[in-house]
Amino acid sequence: MQEPDPIPIHKRLRGKISIAAKAEIKSIMDLATLYTPGVAKPCVEIANDRSLVYDYTMKSNTVAIVSDGSRVLGLGNIGPEAALPVMEGKALIMQQFAGIDAFPICLATQDEDEIVRTVKAIAPVFGAINLEDIETPKVFNIEKRLTEELDIPLFHDDQHGTAMVALAGLYNALKVLEKTPEDVKVGIVGAGSAGNAIAKLLHEAGFNDLVVFDSKGALSSARTDLDEHKKVLAGFNTAGFTKGIRDFKGADIIISASKPGALPTDAIQAMRKPNIVFALSNPTPEIWLEQARELGIDIFGTGRSDYPNQINNSLCFPGFLRALLDLRVKRITMPMKIAAAKGIAMSVKEPTRDMIVPDVFDRNVVKNIVEAVSKAV
Amino acid sequence: MQEPDPIPIHKRLRGKISIAAKAEIKSIMDLATLYTPGVAKPCVEIANDRSLVYDYTMKSNTVAIVSDGSRVLGLGNIGPEAALPVMEGKALIMQQFAGIDAFPICLATQDEDEIVRTVKAIAPVFGAINLEDIETPKVFNIEKRLTEELDIPLFHDDQHGTAMVALAGLYNALKVLEKTPEDVKVGIVGAGSAGNAIAKLLHEAGFNDLVVFDSKGALSSARTDLDEHKKVLAGFNTAGFTKGIRDFKGADIIISASKPGALPTDAIQAMRKPNIVFALSNPTPEIWLEQARELGIDIFGTGRSDYPNQINNSLCFPGFLRALLDLRVKRITMPMKIAAAKGIAMSVKEPTRDMIVPDVFDRNVVKNIVEAVSKAV
Repeated sequence: MQEPDPIPIHKRLRGKISIAAKAEIKSIMDLATLYTPGVAKPCVEIANDRSLVYDYTMKSNTVAIVSDGSRVLGLGNIGPEAALPVMEGKALIMQQFAGIDAFPICLATQDEDEIVRTVKAIAPVFGAINLEDIETPKVFNIEKRLTEELDIPLFHDDQHGTAMVALAGLYNALKVLEKTPEDVKVGIVGAGSAGNAIAKLLHEAGFNDLVVFDSKGALSSARTDLDEHKKVLAGFNTAGFTKGIRDFKGADIIISASKPGALPTDAIQAMRKPNIVFALSNPTPEIWLEQARELGIDIFGTGRSDYPNQINNSLCFPGFLRALLDLRVKRITMPMKIAAAKGIAMSVKEPTRDMIVPDVFDRNVVKNIVEAVSKAV
Repeated sequence: MQEPDPIPIHKRLRGKISIAAKAEIKSIMDLATLYTPGVAKPCVEIANDRSLVYDYTMKSNTVAIVSDGSRVLGLGNIGPEAALPVMEGKALIMQQFAGIDAFPICLATQDEDEIVRTVKAIAPVFGAINLEDIETPKVFNIEKRLTEELDIPLFHDDQHGTAMVALAGLYNALKVLEKTPEDVKVGIVGAGSAGNAIAKLLHEAGFNDLVVFDSKGALSSARTDLDEHKKVLAGFNTAGFTKGIRDFKGADIIISASKPGALPTDAIQAMRKPNIVFALSNPTPEIWLEQARELGIDIFGTGRSDYPNQINNSLCFPGFLRALLDLRVKRITMPMKIAAAKGIAMSVKEPTRDMIVPDVFDRNVVKNIVEAVSKAV
């Protein structure tokens, strides 16, 4: 697929979203009702009962997309201004796919404490916060602190969005191969945002035979160089496997959320058949579709839209945020994430090897996620 | 005028503004152009030349309306959630009157340092910042610090919006009475946000015979209880007048930006004729229209929409912010504010005693302000 040059449309639009008026101000009466003096009445009611902010204002449908620009796409630390086109794109998708009013907040600071303070300071207007493209491990701390300190849900899409879609894909892939989470051995390559969250979500979903690899090999209790985040992942490695991914024999599933070159063909060849491989580095996957076919991978997924089985977080975040807002969730839980993955998975009526996740434009996905999450709240 | 109950419409709308998509995402190609992977191209260009953020993103048309809810309308310190309906109303007016994309930022902190830090942190997305309904004297410090530290313009509407409209009204009132700023003696009652800014703007515009009064009397060098903000205003009192407004004889103009009861009839009766009085406390003015007629005031203005000569900052902020964005102003100057006042004043083709400012719905006002300010940049 050759997409058109994105520069002309960015130049023409000067912003992919705008602020729309939900009422017209044509008369002094309109002004007096929606602005002064009439507006004083809802103000006073909210001052007396703060929960009314959900009934009288934009809060109930509004999400902040917060980034410090420190790890944008595969571009690295490009800063807040350069991150803005991505955040606008995300806001555009939330509006088009799920009717959410999302506003980009690109921060002129990359300091953990400042980010936490700023998000807390701006929270009153928003019904949920979406963290985006903030470098690890800082973002793990920010997520943890804000989850504890905010009274609205904090969602880190790079971690949990990708993880929920990967789990959805696995649910359908296992269905096709007639296996269950308890039957399979899983290797996860990469311990960044996505790898971390995929590992934790899979573990919670019953994938108990699970080893995570970083660039130095398996995360295990034998490693002395692990930070607190990686130590949690090492805890999943109950068999105490200590070598690299090349020596990981008999895996049914390998998910790589790393970079090109991180997933050697030896590792694929050492898997048990039938096998499932997700190569999620994007836009350049760890393994190309042609290679995957040569290697005889049974079910293969990537982040690319021109390949089958696109493990794309756009399948998750519009519906998941819609659910958080509609259900007025205060804090995201593991059962909600597992439910959302099931909601995505069930959007594919009859999964096949080349159709384990729904199409990004499938309008039922948002509805199915909201319905599934509503049962887990 | 009996306006309708504002609660039902606030409940029905759940927010007076929403986020609108400026492009549709209907195909994988749209996604690839406006989101990944295509979006990487404008990101990289902005990373290399930060000024391109004005060409490729929403920044060039986007304003933050920032409040901590510490002094909302006449309601006092009602907090950020309760302030939100006002900020949404303001955003709605900016969109409807001037096509500006304004977003409310209601802060969960009322600490001066935290507010300064937060506004600086969120600045990258915005082309201008509008401070709103923050208590004095804190807001003066915040305005000063942010004006120095931001590379986008900082506008405090409660001060400067009101001041520019008052000055516009005076220009036309003096035209009707065939006087000039240099001819007249002025008393200003109230040294809060509006009084402070009106005094400074009038002084800059050539009203040299000017005394400001607070609840304790004239601000003069004889006073020992003045903070740094009031000391500046005391400096305008070159004649060294030290008594109260009741004893202020021979004024041509009195502007009260205080509260009901602050402007005694004695003070009006001591004025020189023909006289001009603006009673800007809102919704209850210091003097009612009926009283003003009994007292024989020649030109009378208030903040009320049901009286002639409404000195309403809605006449200024849409056009002034439009000018700041269009002209890519980095810092607001006195000449810009005086130019804006002239732009508002000239929108009234033939001023009369009952028509010294244009109608709030006059579509020419925004255009005239932008044109006038463009000559002062």
